[in-house]
Amino acid sequence: MNLKNLTQIGIALSGEKDISKLLGMIVDEAKNLTAADAGTLYILDEEKKHLRFEILKNDTLKTRSGGSSSMKITLLPVPLEIEQKPNHSNVCSYVALTGQIVNTPDIYQAQGFDFSGTKAYDAATGYRSKSALVIPMKDHEGDIIGVLQLLNAKDPNGGGIVPFASDSVDLVDSLGSQAAVALTNRRLIQDLEEAHLDTLHRLALAAEYKDKETVLHIQRMSRYCAILARGLNLPRSDVEIILHASPVHDVGKIGIPDAILLKPGKLDPEEWILMKQHSTIGAHILSGSQSRLVQAGQIIAKSHHEKWDGRGYPDGLAKENIPLWGRICAVADVFDALTSKRPYKEAFSNEKAFKILKEERGKHFDPRLIDVFFERLDEVLAVQVSPLKSLF
Amino acid sequence: MNLKNLTQIGIALSGEKDISKLLGMIVDEAKNLTAADAGTLYILDEEKKHLRFEILKNDTLKTRSGGSSSMKITLLPVPLEIEQKPNHSNVCSYVALTGQIVNTPDIYQAQGFDFSGTKAYDAATGYRSKSALVIPMKDHEGDIIGVLQLLNAKDPNGGGIVPFASDSVDLVDSLGSQAAVALTNRRLIQDLEEAHLDTLHRLALAAEYKDKETVLHIQRMSRYCAILARGLNLPRSDVEIILHASPVHDVGKIGIPDAILLKPGKLDPEEWILMKQHSTIGAHILSGSQSRLVQAGQIIAKSHHEKWDGRGYPDGLAKENIPLWGRICAVADVFDALTSKRPYKEAFSNEKAFKILKEERGKHFDPRLIDVFFERLDEVLAVQVSPLKSLF
Repeated sequence: MNLKNLTQIGIALSGEKDISKLLGMIVDEAKNLTAADAGTLYILDEEKKHLRFEILKNDTLKTRSGGSSSMKITLLPVPLEIEQKPNHSNVCSYVALTGQIVNTPDIYQAQGFDFSGTKAYDAATGYRSKSALVIPMKDHEGDIIGVLQLLNAKDPNGGGIVPFASDSVDLVDSLGSQAAVALTNRRLIQDLEEAHLDTLHRLALAAEYKDKETVLHIQRMSRYCAILARGLNLPRSDVEIILHASPVHDVGKIGIPDAILLKPGKLDPEEWILMKQHSTIGAHILSGSQSRLVQAGQIIAKSHHEKWDGRGYPDGLAKENIPLWGRICAVADVFDALTSKRPYKEAFSNEKAFKILKEERGKHFDPRLIDVFFERLDEVLAVQVSPLKSLF
Repeated sequence: MNLKNLTQIGIALSGEKDISKLLGMIVDEAKNLTAADAGTLYILDEEKKHLRFEILKNDTLKTRSGGSSSMKITLLPVPLEIEQKPNHSNVCSYVALTGQIVNTPDIYQAQGFDFSGTKAYDAATGYRSKSALVIPMKDHEGDIIGVLQLLNAKDPNGGGIVPFASDSVDLVDSLGSQAAVALTNRRLIQDLEEAHLDTLHRLALAAEYKDKETVLHIQRMSRYCAILARGLNLPRSDVEIILHASPVHDVGKIGIPDAILLKPGKLDPEEWILMKQHSTIGAHILSGSQSRLVQAGQIIAKSHHEKWDGRGYPDGLAKENIPLWGRICAVADVFDALTSKRPYKEAFSNEKAFKILKEERGKHFDPRLIDVFFERLDEVLAVQVSPLKSLF
């Protein structure tokens, strides 16, 4: 292990998109760098009051706990003790608060630090912890975001446990900083992705505000879309795009007069002309964005009322000239409309709705999508029953 | 310079939030690592058809071009030549396409590469380029996102120019990868921030769709808010929050019936009760978000019609019990409403509007904010004239 490799590790950490995997990599690389038999990662919670246990890996016990693994052992959160008591400071709390590294040859002989958590772990598992290296993870601004605890450095020349060497300390200190920056950036990216999705979802809900098509309509319809996209073997990124973009399909209803939008009876031809404008109004509201999601939303808003046979609106497109997003949404939206109660109709039974979908195969709907719909019917029905359950 | 430092550089690059500064750091660190007299950074454009010139730094000529500096020299974009011609390949294009490093002791003797850009630079500046090291910037997925060109390695033992040493090549190769990952992450963060702002802005515009309060109303009102926030010496991050969150203040109008929202005359008392609900409806639409911006939007939607003397709505809050965001928006929104034409009134003159603001100081409005408004009147008037001009 040398510093060149540490640079490569830094690149790998910075490039890892999955936070759970990133946390696992941090523990793995810290163990490798220091030849430690076990490693535990704690992350400071948002309120900066506790260190939350994330991952524990132990080679001798062949265990991996926390993270995405089956949780064999969950360590309790460590409260940050602002007032450090002499001879009784939880070692992780101490490291997180002071930013100091603790390196001890034997935790059972250590003076001034409380290794009771580690000792309890030994008692529970039969493991025998000896040497320990506990380091703070400091990001580029010097803020401590977590603590890495490494146990039992292995003697490179034999099987025994030795104290952690001072060059190990330097290496894992650098690693801790790289890991902290990588984690800070990745959390920022995740928060921003969520904020973007959240806001797009609010736009969709706001548009449905008046005619009371509910959260559940949007939830079901978007999930039906995702099922159809998966059935076409589209890559997961595309499945996620239609899942998150399809809720805005009717955003243009914001521009439709109440007298038409909320009319209890049938629309007359002139009202119908106005009502149809919701597709172009929606596309206008969503036009010109750099976001792939909003761009997909624009396509969907514009094209979800086109029909395979060219008799839809607003452009009377036919077959593959209709964007795929629009063709998918057409099936999902109509199926949910048919099977839902609306001011002007009762909910149809699934059987009646299936019959209509089949009759409209190759007329209203892309025939391939109707085939996929029935191939994936069990997934569709699962969403219909529990629309809020996670898809992935 | 050693590998430990390279790790520190990687941390600094990953932590830099400003892309322009990040690009400058990449060139600086690459020059330092290799003792190069000059360095140039090209970034691959989104279509992957050109290398866009970003930054050139030259110690001998004491010039820094591109980036945020005064542009003394702008190099033309280098088209990627998919078909490499023997003996006539632009060296940067070659490196970007092949991922190979080019290290030549003298560009005027180099065979097989076209250094005509560098030669033209020499001719224009009187510089004498000799040794060159050109490396691809590969991110963690192996994608090339740019090219670093370093010129004239300085002899550590004297003043002369020497070829680039092979350990320099390794160092700058690692740096290039660190830089590529840092830049990729930072661009993703920037894109996501923009996507979030963009979507929030669309929500604001969608809400104004029917009563045709225009983009310009939102633009002016939000900038007046930012001016007031700056006048209170709030930190820039808070100024940006009110700038981007205040546009959604009236999002609750989505829930107001057309008959009330679009009524040309005065509202009767019952209609007025319904109209006032737009503040709570808006807060509801924006509730429960993790995004600081959306949270601020919720506060603003709820409280922008509260009055300093407690006579506002929906909660009749008084003085400091009204959230600061709401007090700021009240001044900005009313000033813009007064000075704009509405279906039920002509635009008031600024003088008439100023008189009303002063009369309502300590009644409708937080007195301190009215003071700030008049202290910053030149900024307010500049926004009124050019609402689309950038504030920062």
